Amino acid sequence: MPPVPELLSPRLPRGFADRRGADLHLVRGMIEKIRAVYERYGFEQLETPCIEFADAVGKFLPDQDRPNEGVFALQDDDEQWLCLRYDLTAPLARFVAENFETLPLPFRRYQIGQVFRNEKPGAGRYREFTQFDADAVGTASMAADAEFCMLVADAMEAVGLSRGDYIVKVNNRKVLNGILEMIGVPMGSEGEAARGAVLRAMDKLDRLGTDGVRLLLGKGRKDPSGDFTAGAGLDDASVERVLAFLSAGSDGSRESVCQTLEKLVGTSEAGLEGVAELRAIDATLAASGFGDDRVRFDPSVVRGLAYYTGPVYETELTFEVKDENGQPVRFGSVGGGGRYDDLVERFKGTKVPATGVSIGVSRLAAALSMKGLLGAGTAPKLVIVTVMDAEGQVTAQKMVRELRDAGIASEVYLGSGRLGAQLKYADKRGAAVAIIEGGDERAKGVVKLKDLVRGAQRAKDAATREEWRAKSGDTEFDVSRSELVAGVRRILDRTD
Amino acid sequence: MPPVPELLSPRLPRGFADRRGADLHLVRGMIEKIRAVYERYGFEQLETPCIEFADAVGKFLPDQDRPNEGVFALQDDDEQWLCLRYDLTAPLARFVAENFETLPLPFRRYQIGQVFRNEKPGAGRYREFTQFDADAVGTASMAADAEFCMLVADAMEAVGLSRGDYIVKVNNRKVLNGILEMIGVPMGSEGEAARGAVLRAMDKLDRLGTDGVRLLLGKGRKDPSGDFTAGAGLDDASVERVLAFLSAGSDGSRESVCQTLEKLVGTSEAGLEGVAELRAIDATLAASGFGDDRVRFDPSVVRGLAYYTGPVYETELTFEVKDENGQPVRFGSVGGGGRYDDLVERFKGTKVPATGVSIGVSRLAAALSMKGLLGAGTAPKLVIVTVMDAEGQVTAQKMVRELRDAGIASEVYLGSGRLGAQLKYADKRGAAVAIIEGGDERAKGVVKLKDLVRGAQRAKDAATREEWRAKSGDTEFDVSRSELVAGVRRILDRTD
Repeated sequence: MPPVPELLSPRLPRGFADRRGADLHLVRGMIEKIRAVYERYGFEQLETPCIEFADAVGKFLPDQDRPNEGVFALQDDDEQWLCLRYDLTAPLARFVAENFETLPLPFRRYQIGQVFRNEKPGAGRYREFTQFDADAVGTASMAADAEFCMLVADAMEAVGLSRGDYIVKVNNRKVLNGILEMIGVPMGSEGEAARGAVLRAMDKLDRLGTDGVRLLLGKGRKDPSGDFTAGAGLDDASVERVLAFLSAGSDGSRESVCQTLEKLVGTSEAGLEGVAELRAIDATLAASGFGDDRVRFDPSVVRGLAYYTGPVYETELTFEVKDENGQPVRFGSVGGGGRYDDLVERFKGTKVPATGVSIGVSRLAAALSMKGLLGAGTAPKLVIVTVMDAEGQVTAQKMVRELRDAGIASEVYLGSGRLGAQLKYADKRGAAVAIIEGGDERAKGVVKLKDLVRGAQRAKDAATREEWRAKSGDTEFDVSRSELVAGVRRILDRTD
Repeated sequence: MPPVPELLSPRLPRGFADRRGADLHLVRGMIEKIRAVYERYGFEQLETPCIEFADAVGKFLPDQDRPNEGVFALQDDDEQWLCLRYDLTAPLARFVAENFETLPLPFRRYQIGQVFRNEKPGAGRYREFTQFDADAVGTASMAADAEFCMLVADAMEAVGLSRGDYIVKVNNRKVLNGILEMIGVPMGSEGEAARGAVLRAMDKLDRLGTDGVRLLLGKGRKDPSGDFTAGAGLDDASVERVLAFLSAGSDGSRESVCQTLEKLVGTSEAGLEGVAELRAIDATLAASGFGDDRVRFDPSVVRGLAYYTGPVYETELTFEVKDENGQPVRFGSVGGGGRYDDLVERFKGTKVPATGVSIGVSRLAAALSMKGLLGAGTAPKLVIVTVMDAEGQVTAQKMVRELRDAGIASEVYLGSGRLGAQLKYADKRGAAVAIIEGGDERAKGVVKLKDLVRGAQRAKDAATREEWRAKSGDTEFDVSRSELVAGVRRILDRTD
């Protein structure tokens, strides 16, 4: 006899999740609204596979310092190293380089797809999640950068957010580089490590406040547990200049931020170029009627990705939600993006300027859900036809056929439970109507219809069993078998 | 100086593909039609991740004899063995087992998602592709199996196929097992190897014909190149019995096939149970008005998956297309499914009967495209606003804002080309309208609209350049700047 096999444990690796019916229905509605905005902006859809050659996309990873850290790598039959895409931008660069001669340029595409991160998962931090990106490759125009800010702002309102509930914040890497140049950090690859240390310190503003960032920009910081983080090693004057840059955005108009930044970058060419780019973005925004209430300039926006070369954007939801300790906090980022002029160059050898933006689908859905904006009751209403006896198997099939032909979502109960179990099943499914045809009903040529929604409501409202019985007349009634579809429609059309 | 980096090669591994705008738009339309049918049948949507624990889903692989062959395996940060799902059924079994106590049972779900096969790719054979599945877990009723046949038949008509262009073929593993039992192949695990050899031989009927299968059921077969394939080793009488089973479906009614099969299985209990199951399926189909023109019984259907335990279904498109040699062939299978009563048992230790069906999205789309049924011209019509000078950058932005606010897909040309290049870009994008506003137009307060669709048609039709010029009046005209949206609408609404 073969050995008794051990039972497998039915589980998912940490950081992965299943999603079900009603949630998916709502998220799909949200995605379609975003899609409509992207298509109105003239973006065409692209789908690339989840799997790429590791060397083609593995060089740039968001929020990581070491190449290939955080990527899921795998080998195929031929022992080639492949990887799961960690974003939709690196595959886009590969696609554009591969099809450069035939593509319309600028190439404007949107893409919805799963991305994968081989990282330690945390609360709300998944290792597989969905991004919704739009990019334009082959344009150096700041009008493109402005357009992505408008695109995201329009998308936020399309999904139901009010003006004031979101803000698109814009920064420019070149301005920061200019300031670093002025305080003696060299441009180019020699200054790369120092710039990275400054970016990492700036990125902690939300968490550690100005004082924490000051320590990290200077000699380093010991956290409450005693762990020491080495600092960027800037002298005091330089630290204050970076901090002045960081706080230059606090609520000023776009032009006033530009004026402040202009002073901070002094004579740095890179810095002045960065400010000029922000001004060009402002001009397009203004021509299109986008005020400071929708798109703001804010130098505290860092965006982790090493590949950004100019403007970077962050989409923040500004309303408050409760954090895990019950404290009110801003909901925060639901996506971002920026200009990455070097990404296609790795393939082509020549610069192909590009810029784009990404929306985190699950995070945005979570935000809309908290605001009650994800809609409800939009899933199709379901009718369950119960089965009382062997003959009912056949007559029930005929009933669902009539209902389905009339466009009504319906099914025959196919389990082995009795009526009580069947009604419990209908309840678990969130069904709107249950149909019962026992021998009595069949003899009389009728079917019994139960309005499950109103029935549940009446049962909740009634003070006594007697009261409930007295009022149940319109939640459960017989109709002639030939009136099945009309009777079901009557219940489905009820709005209470 | 750092070394000059080597250029990366922009390419995809074999068996993976990119897909673009117009194609995706059409496939999306097809998917929504199928989804509407699935939801009308009362299936709720489920999404599971692409990544699972290898041990949880890796035991059953379609069309493979060895476990884990053909699966993409990978290790995460914690060195756990994960894999990419190779179908949507094994993850469903994991999901149901994991949530068994809270799910409504039977659990009816549909799922659309990518699946991954680590196999040698071939023509039209991808290593990442999309499946559209529906399953019911927790029902032993043959009404469920009948329902999946009806579901797929309804889906085929929903996407535009005519009755007669498709057929759902049904077979039952138990009938074959019964016949094997009658010819001395033992039931249970002892007979597993022999049953596998017979299944593999039967599966070659299309390619090798009856004579080839006869050899493979018996002593073995040498192919034209001289390679020898060992046979199943059945004696002549047994071979003929299996061949009689294989051909029992040729065009008979469902009931007449059952009668033939009843004779072939003799006294085998498993075989008789299989025939009774087919009769139960027939009863539900008949009650629902599904004739032999939509669902047929055909013992030649094998379906590779080792995990099927009862009825199996195959959805075939019956119309002819040309093969690679220009020869007419039937389009063939676009999906299938069957009953797999053991899959959840691996987790739960008790039987949880289940059955379901899968549609190959790309293959069905390819078929519809060949039949001209995938629709056309449904992608949004695009307007390109060209840019002639610096001032035009700003006025163009205002124009697209008006157009987008009116719901018209539009964009400013953001590249650096002159007008000729901009119109070529509009052509590559398949744009419907180009808008031109140079200094002259601006001074007059007008914009020039070009109907690109009619313009291309006129250019093709005109015998001479003069004739083309004479007729171009209605393909290119000025409108007052304030009439921009109305003028564009006039062109977009043209139907010629």
